[in-house]
Amino acid sequence: MAIDNVLASIDRDLDASLARLFDLLKIRSISTDPGFGDECGRAANWLRDQLQGMGFDASVRATPGHPMVVAHAKSANANAPHVLFYGHYDVQPVDPLELWETDPFAPRIVEAEGSKRIVARGAADDKGQLMAFVEACRAFMGNGGLPCHVSILFEGEEECGSGSLPAFLAAHKDELKADCVLVCDTNMWDKDTPAITTMLRGLVLQEVVIDAASRDLHSGLFGGAAMNPIRVLARILADLHDDNGRVTLPGFYDGVEDLPADVAAQWRALNFDEGAFLGALGLGVPAGEKGRSVLEQVWSRPTCDVNGIVGGYTGEGTKTVLPARASAKVSFRLVGAQDPQKIVESFHAFVRARLPADCRASFHAHGASPAISLPFSSPMLQKARAALTAEWGREAVMAGGGGSIPVIGQFKRDLGMDSLMIGFGLDDDRIHSPNEKYEVKSFHKGARSWARVLQALAG
Amino acid sequence: MAIDNVLASIDRDLDASLARLFDLLKIRSISTDPGFGDECGRAANWLRDQLQGMGFDASVRATPGHPMVVAHAKSANANAPHVLFYGHYDVQPVDPLELWETDPFAPRIVEAEGSKRIVARGAADDKGQLMAFVEACRAFMGNGGLPCHVSILFEGEEECGSGSLPAFLAAHKDELKADCVLVCDTNMWDKDTPAITTMLRGLVLQEVVIDAASRDLHSGLFGGAAMNPIRVLARILADLHDDNGRVTLPGFYDGVEDLPADVAAQWRALNFDEGAFLGALGLGVPAGEKGRSVLEQVWSRPTCDVNGIVGGYTGEGTKTVLPARASAKVSFRLVGAQDPQKIVESFHAFVRARLPADCRASFHAHGASPAISLPFSSPMLQKARAALTAEWGREAVMAGGGGSIPVIGQFKRDLGMDSLMIGFGLDDDRIHSPNEKYEVKSFHKGARSWARVLQALAG
Repeated sequence: MAIDNVLASIDRDLDASLARLFDLLKIRSISTDPGFGDECGRAANWLRDQLQGMGFDASVRATPGHPMVVAHAKSANANAPHVLFYGHYDVQPVDPLELWETDPFAPRIVEAEGSKRIVARGAADDKGQLMAFVEACRAFMGNGGLPCHVSILFEGEEECGSGSLPAFLAAHKDELKADCVLVCDTNMWDKDTPAITTMLRGLVLQEVVIDAASRDLHSGLFGGAAMNPIRVLARILADLHDDNGRVTLPGFYDGVEDLPADVAAQWRALNFDEGAFLGALGLGVPAGEKGRSVLEQVWSRPTCDVNGIVGGYTGEGTKTVLPARASAKVSFRLVGAQDPQKIVESFHAFVRARLPADCRASFHAHGASPAISLPFSSPMLQKARAALTAEWGREAVMAGGGGSIPVIGQFKRDLGMDSLMIGFGLDDDRIHSPNEKYEVKSFHKGARSWARVLQALAG
Repeated sequence: MAIDNVLASIDRDLDASLARLFDLLKIRSISTDPGFGDECGRAANWLRDQLQGMGFDASVRATPGHPMVVAHAKSANANAPHVLFYGHYDVQPVDPLELWETDPFAPRIVEAEGSKRIVARGAADDKGQLMAFVEACRAFMGNGGLPCHVSILFEGEEECGSGSLPAFLAAHKDELKADCVLVCDTNMWDKDTPAITTMLRGLVLQEVVIDAASRDLHSGLFGGAAMNPIRVLARILADLHDDNGRVTLPGFYDGVEDLPADVAAQWRALNFDEGAFLGALGLGVPAGEKGRSVLEQVWSRPTCDVNGIVGGYTGEGTKTVLPARASAKVSFRLVGAQDPQKIVESFHAFVRARLPADCRASFHAHGASPAISLPFSSPMLQKARAALTAEWGREAVMAGGGGSIPVIGQFKRDLGMDSLMIGFGLDDDRIHSPNEKYEVKSFHKGARSWARVLQALAG
């Protein structure tokens, strides 16, 4: 079978593919720091050259920020499905540098805790993950050709907000439109169990600013007479949850459904260790809605959190100030069919209903995106599940994701494409932190998994 | 009459006394900035020299911070009462310097809004106020001698926390103990109406820190499962007031009495313009306890204010962090016989009663002092009232003070002395701000007022 040759080729080629990954890891493509703009360009060029060398029609496209890499390759089977693979070549900053055991841009293999690990900035997020896919394509192209038509989009601004992506997608709809998107930014359930992320929570980000007096006041001279905006803000934020951990915004739970019975059963069967999960954070009691498991609370239930609050004097000691202003950054995680815009409106009304006469509220929107979910009945999902089970010898977990991946929403909304989120990262990969690592096994079996997934999607 | 000669002498000597005040105002005695330590020493030496020149037994006393000036002079009448006058020679920093119309340490007389004003840093706070008393003493000492035994204490750290004062008072109890203290840090009711401040609110300063998880968490990955300390803190702070603006701490109002009928009547008769008072702050509705006038709210009712709050991400934009910690600085203004220690304990219990299992609270105390009040029946108060009425032709207002003056509490607690707070500042003197000023009328009639008060106390 052709797939056996492809898998054998991946196995034989492992050292060379690791060497190629290391070349990419050596490029300091820190996107948020303008001092590394040239390095981002180098990473894009390196990827274009690699893809061209394999036979892709690949090019680097300028944007107002860092460039995109776009590549296309056809399958010999004209009727094959067309997939778009998305990844990003940029990485997080490396500070605090003193906590790295070695240079973050001098990749190396380390043996620890019974496994071989690639240690470098970007090893897991996202260079190792995207190169696993590239190596799967390379193996096909050297062994009779791709089973699907494959397009690739690598961006260089994922770690700094993907500022250029929406306009780029809009301008290249026809070129990038495919039957589905493959996204590699996610994790396995554990080191032996693959996962497909089928639901991601949406996100509404709002900043609320409460203004009262026209200037800061002395709390002795004016305290008791002048309204304190921190007091007003505290009341608003306290009112956002009831005693059972439910969010009290009117209409907040519109569009939120309970889990289908089969998914609920799979999640229960995972025997997720809530105590260990919370214990690792120094916590012991699930804080969310009463009567829901922790997995439900973080994967399939909506939340409201205050991400930041500030007002008055916050330095050492005290200052008897009665501040003129207080503000909070509030975020809502959305699931199911919750409507981000309705939640924004409900939040504004909720705040305004609690404003005393002397206070004014203003709002800053920092984003609003709906939840994403892939129907469990989706044929491509079923094919990918089978492919992963064949590679790992274990049923792939249909996982939820607590965080958002904004690009997934853009693919859905702007290009009408569902995304299949498959990644081989582990929870302990220390992405965004010093000594980031990616398991050699994740890289190697990740490439094999992608080969099997591409083959399965073509079937 | 002797007092007439004294008053005439003050009038005749006005230009020379202004020149002396200017000499003091030229000294850059900014106590909080170590770069001006020598200037503080210069101010202390200048005051010692002035007082010695007048006939006081005056000396400069070293402290761990800036020096004290202590001076004594006897009345010829051995049975005369003994008063201790307190003031401070240090001043606030001058930044933002660019907002000063002229050099803050080049004092000058400006005519504006129909009055002559002394413009300089420290003109009102406190050099002009203390020199008004010194000039009253000078007039007596040049015209037959002081009517009371007078001791003087000038400190140089009032604007930076009076760090050396408590130990200095404790170490010099016998030397400084008098029948009462005269304090000059307060204001008139308006430019034509003198005031004696007979009650000052006490102050309890507490910082509360709520800790939850052992580190900051990603609100997408953990939101819903992990407790958010900002949410906990908001609930606690919101619970501190009821819907009528009353503080809800158990026992908080123990020791709080309603105003005596005569004082309530005097305050009503002041026809205080609440709308103008609040309007100047950009406000329109009294925020304190319902059913109380604004003067009551700031002078005679206790309060709770949050002076600062911080937690999570407070920079530009957003960060989806679920913070490990949130904290607030909370202050209580006390009146009557409220017990600061009981209020601290009640606050701690109040917070702990609202802590979920996964949160811990810690507290930092930044001070706790009871309210001060001088009985309206006090003979010295009645004498001072009569003296001020004679000078200004108007009844002196028995004022409250919303803020605390910690030294007043120390004199009471440690030396058993009541304080008579009489000052000639105006609300628009811009103390602590650029272009600070003191009315020449305040200085001149202030000196005359002190002369009359000293005479009256001796009677």
